[in-house]
Amino acid sequence: MELEVYRKHSQMARGLAKAEKVFKNGTVFISNTGEFVKGDVAVSDGIVIGVGNYSGLEEIDLDGKIICPGFIDSHLHLESTLVTPGELVRQAAQCGTTTFIVDPHESANVSGTDGIDYILDQTEDVPANVYVMMPSCVPATHIDDNGCTLSAGKMKAYLDNPRILGLGEVMDAPSVINGNISMHEKLNLFRNKVKDGHAPFLGAGDLAAYALGGINTDHECVDYEYAMAEARNGMQVLIREGSAARNLDAIVKGIVEHHTDTSAFCFCTDDKHIEEIRREGHINYNVKRAVSLGLPVEKALQMATIQPARCYGLTHLGMIAPGRQADFVIFDNLMDLNVVDVYHAGKKIIRDEKIELKPCPPALKNTVHVSGFSEERLKLKHPGTKAHVIQMLEHQIVTKDVVEEVPWKETDGKRYFASDENYQKIAVIERHKNTGKMGVGIVKGYGIRNGAIASSVSHDSHNIIVVGDNDQDMVLAVKELIHTQGGYTLVNNGKIYGTLPLQVMGLMSDAGYENVNAALSRMIPKAHEMGIPEGFDPFITLSFMALPVIPEIRVTPRGIYLTSQDRMLANPFHN
Amino acid sequence: MELEVYRKHSQMARGLAKAEKVFKNGTVFISNTGEFVKGDVAVSDGIVIGVGNYSGLEEIDLDGKIICPGFIDSHLHLESTLVTPGELVRQAAQCGTTTFIVDPHESANVSGTDGIDYILDQTEDVPANVYVMMPSCVPATHIDDNGCTLSAGKMKAYLDNPRILGLGEVMDAPSVINGNISMHEKLNLFRNKVKDGHAPFLGAGDLAAYALGGINTDHECVDYEYAMAEARNGMQVLIREGSAARNLDAIVKGIVEHHTDTSAFCFCTDDKHIEEIRREGHINYNVKRAVSLGLPVEKALQMATIQPARCYGLTHLGMIAPGRQADFVIFDNLMDLNVVDVYHAGKKIIRDEKIELKPCPPALKNTVHVSGFSEERLKLKHPGTKAHVIQMLEHQIVTKDVVEEVPWKETDGKRYFASDENYQKIAVIERHKNTGKMGVGIVKGYGIRNGAIASSVSHDSHNIIVVGDNDQDMVLAVKELIHTQGGYTLVNNGKIYGTLPLQVMGLMSDAGYENVNAALSRMIPKAHEMGIPEGFDPFITLSFMALPVIPEIRVTPRGIYLTSQDRMLANPFHN
Repeated sequence: MELEVYRKHSQMARGLAKAEKVFKNGTVFISNTGEFVKGDVAVSDGIVIGVGNYSGLEEIDLDGKIICPGFIDSHLHLESTLVTPGELVRQAAQCGTTTFIVDPHESANVSGTDGIDYILDQTEDVPANVYVMMPSCVPATHIDDNGCTLSAGKMKAYLDNPRILGLGEVMDAPSVINGNISMHEKLNLFRNKVKDGHAPFLGAGDLAAYALGGINTDHECVDYEYAMAEARNGMQVLIREGSAARNLDAIVKGIVEHHTDTSAFCFCTDDKHIEEIRREGHINYNVKRAVSLGLPVEKALQMATIQPARCYGLTHLGMIAPGRQADFVIFDNLMDLNVVDVYHAGKKIIRDEKIELKPCPPALKNTVHVSGFSEERLKLKHPGTKAHVIQMLEHQIVTKDVVEEVPWKETDGKRYFASDENYQKIAVIERHKNTGKMGVGIVKGYGIRNGAIASSVSHDSHNIIVVGDNDQDMVLAVKELIHTQGGYTLVNNGKIYGTLPLQVMGLMSDAGYENVNAALSRMIPKAHEMGIPEGFDPFITLSFMALPVIPEIRVTPRGIYLTSQDRMLANPFHN
Repeated sequence: MELEVYRKHSQMARGLAKAEKVFKNGTVFISNTGEFVKGDVAVSDGIVIGVGNYSGLEEIDLDGKIICPGFIDSHLHLESTLVTPGELVRQAAQCGTTTFIVDPHESANVSGTDGIDYILDQTEDVPANVYVMMPSCVPATHIDDNGCTLSAGKMKAYLDNPRILGLGEVMDAPSVINGNISMHEKLNLFRNKVKDGHAPFLGAGDLAAYALGGINTDHECVDYEYAMAEARNGMQVLIREGSAARNLDAIVKGIVEHHTDTSAFCFCTDDKHIEEIRREGHINYNVKRAVSLGLPVEKALQMATIQPARCYGLTHLGMIAPGRQADFVIFDNLMDLNVVDVYHAGKKIIRDEKIELKPCPPALKNTVHVSGFSEERLKLKHPGTKAHVIQMLEHQIVTKDVVEEVPWKETDGKRYFASDENYQKIAVIERHKNTGKMGVGIVKGYGIRNGAIASSVSHDSHNIIVVGDNDQDMVLAVKELIHTQGGYTLVNNGKIYGTLPLQVMGLMSDAGYENVNAALSRMIPKAHEMGIPEGFDPFITLSFMALPVIPEIRVTPRGIYLTSQDRMLANPFHN
């Protein structure tokens, strides 16, 4: 059968039979040679038959437009946009990204391999190629209380899955460098596959030791010098341009200035929200921006096509050549680089096509399991000493650990911390395994008044995080999220102002991206109205306050964590 | 254990422990970025630990010299130099080639998988990395009488051998393009590995169909235009500079002239004899020559290092970076590119080191099995008509099919072809399976007088080929080779003037390259003295006269073969 198909295709390639579909009169980007060549592209059964002079049963006149291999996003997370994976992929595919190399790190932290299976399943039939890197750091640290532990043993079953390309971003550089057993079991399991890195700011020796551990890529470089240091250590640099982290300008300017060989570079988005994808684009934006900075267009296109294909061993992608998958992005011209059409496996991607959502397994919509939560436990006794306060900073996810006097009130003869316009309460409630763990802290700078805000998206363990200026509203917010099985909620003056349910693992909504957007565009302005400065995204900034790898101070279900000192305090008044 | 080693190496990489060996003060070629960087290279247990500022238990001061990843010969045959595989590898390794991707096509034609096992075994302990491509065309054609047939079924056992990188040069392009079942079984078996090509002169459609069959590389391009056509079809071009075929100038001049992206190019030698390796070098010669033609030195070095490593999936080679094998070639400077030293897995390669030869399995020294050979069967009855004569051409392996009157003598009332100064007899005797098959033809231009010359090296089937001006000497020559179990022999006036025994499959000598050279330098001048023009290598040119894929006329054990007409004649007097 397969041979029969080849014979048919061979006849087409040789011009002895008409091809199924021919893109006539194109300017074909040949990624292998970096050239633009005038010609027709013949396609059949979703693969490229030949580039040259062809006629087809169906002919599409490109009229000189640019036909380029579909783009590859070499590293991204699908969960952060709050919609189901298929929706994000569909949006980005319309911009020309036909291949996604995703790390389902968030899903794995909640639901382990079931979460990974969900991502695989939901992206199986989308009009794009979705590959998965096995999350390497679940849980992210030894002090995390997440839903699952992903050991090398559990990963083994995925080794032969052709959609699993390797090990996901290895954030825990110290475990690599220090030769931690369980980390090296994972590295060893994927020794013949790609192992993505995540290691900004390592010193020269540590970076060498990290590369020596087998790490192949990094998408965390924020400047040209560090990117080059990684490339010189044999790593591939995935230049990131996402919603929050935008590193392209710094790195590409360096490349242009130094006439750097670009073969060690690819593009990625890491995290990019649907609104921004719709507004400015996806990997096509990386290309466009790089070209605007002076990078030759053929180099930029290679970084979006053949280079990631080579890096991840995707020999059937990244090139318009016989036998490669017919994934194309068609541009108007080389100046404007506007995407006119996109094809996946020879089929045109229909703009904003309505697709029936694949159902989510019921267990994944039932992941919020909280025990022993009560208003009583939110109370913070005030011993009269100074407290460690989480000082939040606008436009940043790092915090400052400030130790200072905080306000209090007396109730039944006891002193308790009491919010005012400067200080509010923040708490994290373990929500995976009914452990009853819960940490309470004091926050400054977030400014919420007359209410509370809570989220079940809270990196990386995704417990319930809540902040508020009164315990009643905080309780209401937490109970709402227990009730909705995850989501974002905003409570104002004793009433729920709005809730965006995120039932899928407490991370994503399957109500569609329009509904998600509608809810956010009602809740976010209200949050700012309630005192949260414009320099914060009320929910996204909050979602990083429990992440114990970011300086300087965090709140976790185990207490207050001082990152740089690696020290856990039972409450903010401890020393 | 492995983790213990990593921990030790990590300490060295971080500068917390001294490295085993440090190459101090080098100019390090970083193939991943195409840069030359000043620094030290730390090595331990045969792998690179780091590039930077290191101190070691042993320190080698490079004093600014260039340290570059060891070179990769992306395609070669080991048999053609007549010595055992280890000897050729050792010679070439001294020139900086530390990785060899070999196609044991000749050995497989004689001894099948035993021949391949021999190559694998003989090259296991050499100071270089030797990988094998599984010969794809054994026998080369359906009219060949060789020793073995190598089907996909027989290849299966080699799939998981980490030294087998893929399928060897697929010379039979028509079988690919026409969808021949047994060819596609082989292509399919190696679908996830590299499949080397061999297809000069295909038209555009045929080339597309060939690439569509899954062919990844070609080393047969003789000009820039065809090389680019192959690269545009997604193939990697292996630029060949060997003993006979020298394509580098034509291709590299085109690259330089057109400022072509060089990432689709590698270097190879295909066939290069020891004398020439010693005289001009190996892959280092390709590099040097390319640079002399104007190719930037970093581009030439990438074509010899990281590009073939990428093409063949050798992720541990081709780069001086943490975790890569410590294969280095050290140059005096970037102008002269003289190789000063070579290291394989951190060990210095000792020049002309005497090594004990690995024994050859007895069965492989017993491969000449001839039945029914006699002087009587050499006779060619002359029917009085014109004959198809093999017109040999100096400096070429193609021949002309000339039909003309040829001389005769009468014996016992019958007319037989009789040699004179213009026409001699040529015969091929099947020597693998006692089939008794034997073809006799007439040759012109070779000019041998008063004797005969015979060889068991005769592409691709390696039967015994003999040419002479009298039957007695021809018989003596053939019998000598049956007696020695293969070799080159020269008979003059009824006496054996000299024989070079090639006992290993009738292809190679294990007497050492000095002995081979001594024998050749005695026999070759004598052959010229006996009338063979200087434009022929008496043995090498002869070895192509039975190869039925080269125009226009050949002699085979089945008779005279007219290549372009695909027609076999029982004898030269047939029409």
